[in-house]
Amino acid sequence: MSITDRRSLLQAAAAIPLVASAATTALAQTPAEPAKPAPSKDVTRKLAHYIVNAKYEDLPDNVRKEGIRTLLNWVGVAIGGSRHQTVDIAVSALAPFSGPAQASLFGRRERFDIMNAAFINGVSSHIFDYDDTHLKTIIHPAGPVASAILALSEMQPVSGKEFLNALVLGVETECRIGNSVYPNHYDVGWHITGTAGVFGSAAAVGKLMNLNEQQMVWAIGLAASQPVGLRESFGSMNKSFNPGRAAANGIFAATLASKNFTSSDSMIEAKRGWANTISTKQDYNEILGDLGKRYEAALNTYKPFACGIVMHPAIDAAIQLRNENKLTADQIERVDLKVHPLVLELTGKKTPREGLEGKFSIYHAVAVALVEGAGGEKQFSDRAVTDPTIVALRSKVMPVITPGIDPAQVDMTIVLKDGRTLHRYIAHAIGSVEVPMTDKQLETKFADLADGIISAEAARRVIDACWNVESLPSAAEIAKMSVST
Amino acid sequence: MSITDRRSLLQAAAAIPLVASAATTALAQTPAEPAKPAPSKDVTRKLAHYIVNAKYEDLPDNVRKEGIRTLLNWVGVAIGGSRHQTVDIAVSALAPFSGPAQASLFGRRERFDIMNAAFINGVSSHIFDYDDTHLKTIIHPAGPVASAILALSEMQPVSGKEFLNALVLGVETECRIGNSVYPNHYDVGWHITGTAGVFGSAAAVGKLMNLNEQQMVWAIGLAASQPVGLRESFGSMNKSFNPGRAAANGIFAATLASKNFTSSDSMIEAKRGWANTISTKQDYNEILGDLGKRYEAALNTYKPFACGIVMHPAIDAAIQLRNENKLTADQIERVDLKVHPLVLELTGKKTPREGLEGKFSIYHAVAVALVEGAGGEKQFSDRAVTDPTIVALRSKVMPVITPGIDPAQVDMTIVLKDGRTLHRYIAHAIGSVEVPMTDKQLETKFADLADGIISAEAARRVIDACWNVESLPSAAEIAKMSVST
Repeated sequence: MSITDRRSLLQAAAAIPLVASAATTALAQTPAEPAKPAPSKDVTRKLAHYIVNAKYEDLPDNVRKEGIRTLLNWVGVAIGGSRHQTVDIAVSALAPFSGPAQASLFGRRERFDIMNAAFINGVSSHIFDYDDTHLKTIIHPAGPVASAILALSEMQPVSGKEFLNALVLGVETECRIGNSVYPNHYDVGWHITGTAGVFGSAAAVGKLMNLNEQQMVWAIGLAASQPVGLRESFGSMNKSFNPGRAAANGIFAATLASKNFTSSDSMIEAKRGWANTISTKQDYNEILGDLGKRYEAALNTYKPFACGIVMHPAIDAAIQLRNENKLTADQIERVDLKVHPLVLELTGKKTPREGLEGKFSIYHAVAVALVEGAGGEKQFSDRAVTDPTIVALRSKVMPVITPGIDPAQVDMTIVLKDGRTLHRYIAHAIGSVEVPMTDKQLETKFADLADGIISAEAARRVIDACWNVESLPSAAEIAKMSVST
Repeated sequence: MSITDRRSLLQAAAAIPLVASAATTALAQTPAEPAKPAPSKDVTRKLAHYIVNAKYEDLPDNVRKEGIRTLLNWVGVAIGGSRHQTVDIAVSALAPFSGPAQASLFGRRERFDIMNAAFINGVSSHIFDYDDTHLKTIIHPAGPVASAILALSEMQPVSGKEFLNALVLGVETECRIGNSVYPNHYDVGWHITGTAGVFGSAAAVGKLMNLNEQQMVWAIGLAASQPVGLRESFGSMNKSFNPGRAAANGIFAATLASKNFTSSDSMIEAKRGWANTISTKQDYNEILGDLGKRYEAALNTYKPFACGIVMHPAIDAAIQLRNENKLTADQIERVDLKVHPLVLELTGKKTPREGLEGKFSIYHAVAVALVEGAGGEKQFSDRAVTDPTIVALRSKVMPVITPGIDPAQVDMTIVLKDGRTLHRYIAHAIGSVEVPMTDKQLETKFADLADGIISAEAARRVIDACWNVESLPSAAEIAKMSVST
């Protein structure tokens, strides 16, 4: 009997209990099913085929380069978040259950089995909401993928080129699948970094485990069975949990598939598979269209400031004017900004009293950017929010809702006490696709995040290792260099 | 600043990136959200309060009794499935990653950390689709819960009474949450045993970890973030994966919450929390109504035969007539059965050639029931399906679709060669709520499943330990007794 026949029979049998319960629940009146589009053929299999066969040499230069930037940015935020209470709790809770000490924790001394290490590093990298963004879907793609394959690379030999290829393929898989169900899936409440992220992890880990096509199909199916994260988690540690658990779930899926633990052959597109169950929209062309020709992974962006994107244009303008004019706070009479309504709606807090509140205050953000010329975690600390100079300057910041200004723009005028006015209009903030962070800016962000966690020399070595990942004999070097000593 | 204020701010901030991407994706035209009912207040908190405060002494007698039957049935199927290839693969794949040898594998020799042990035992218990059924929702409740808390009980002291209380509370939590989103959630494609099961595991494990109410709220939130399973998995090993992973995910949630890893305070009912995101129907009265007075856990049923429920009435009738009349195959001229259309649609295979196909053949099921007087795994083996006597009798089985017969019924007439006719009408098959399996029948099922895996004496000891769980100083005894030696 063919496998297909067997599976059809099993599926029919599994449906039996549902039917038989009709006797007790009048199931005879099964609710009419809403019309669904005809299922596309072989989406899962074609995606698996692509992942299994895509080689490092196939990657265009710009895609490789963006993959390296994605890696560097991720390593920096993973180190940066490593001492947060959230990570302390995760380490303490999971230590009694950890497997062998297979993989490093970025910025820390402990070692865990690869699944728990991937979880903890994934959590760490997302804590400050300072990671990367696939702007169309708001997926933060690197967390679920990089944490998984860096951990794996400490357990089996993975060259830098193989690693980079897997990272790109994982991000690509994650973003394409996210695109296929966007925006409906996110809008209804799923934390898409977690729900799409598990596919990215499974794909990247499965690639490095050399799964064959059938095994990769099953890995995708097992990943699809383990979505992670709801948007209600925002505001709690659960938000950071989501990309971390997605990373671990992807390793779990690929590991089982590597031993021929079977799943459906069409889990993404089947009538009661992933896309139809978890979303009211399914566009499979987003997954399969131009595979290997068009790369979502090339569109990744990196947060330049450790706060929500709606404040980034104003911070950008403030830093530019400060630096160009060597401004000090005492020179400033007033700061007028023309902003979109969302800036006041989401970040309108006038008197933040502690660091976290500062992330919701355009008044603080502009003031600290003018005083300190930066918008990193340090600028959203209790220290910064209570600094008398910054507090004083805050009250001179005057945002005004102005038609024609969209959320990615700002029009800033600084009025100086000597009568001069300084003007800056931002059409696209630093960190956008139009104005990406430069390599140097990524290095500065990294160094700032690593400060106090690993030495400046160690940070420099990790940065260099990331830039040179393709020539590393073993990608594990990056993880090993990123621990605390 | 209050925690509530802080969370509101963080939630607002987390929304910022979505908004800011409008600049690049014309988000100004955010899709209109469908109207949702006003969120109910404090569903998660009230459920957590109940779980945390519910005592063993609160359990009515019939609920305790059914909980014990649930335990016995589950242990039997966990042992029975333990040598299946699916379990072999899971053990082989996960062994390199396992934590300390904290917990037993039922029917086997290996030991794993509690999360992986719970996963593997959960898989094992579901392989034959022979476990328990909450008929309204088709949840198979014990798997995600019993596997989790039996593993936990080997790591920390758990008395038999505490264990039974936790088992009931876990099943209760799982089934009530399942009820709240049924049937929409299942119909669209979720494997509800996995999606509801993770709550049951988290609740039961959290109970035994003595989480306080706030921690239980967070455990529920972290569980809600980890749904498991799609119906497309039916027909592959992925189906058994689902309750196992739900068990492990629940332990993961409770473990983190025990160290104050935070989640939302209202993850079940929040606008973008679990019920609104994963279902188009939300009936919170199903979760909170008559908590502690009405028990879904008392409605659990156990499969009497190792196949889909739609064949159970016919097997039941055949065994009854066989036993009452001491029938042998050579006496039988013909077997007429009046059946519901689904019997032929789902189990109409006339010539099964191997054991698994037999589970989809009403012809085989009736024939083997008449010849062997049973419908367990042995009766759906390659041996049984190719037995000449059974094959010959198969061709004398004549099912006829008859109006007025529903899927839980059968009207059977056996025509004997000597001219006699034997008739049996089944209104409710054995294993239904109306005609539950007797304790003796559960023991017979257990012994049949354990045969060849643990000795008959060991099986008897485990059965007795289950019946007497309330007097056990340590529930771990049951697990320890259930291993292979």
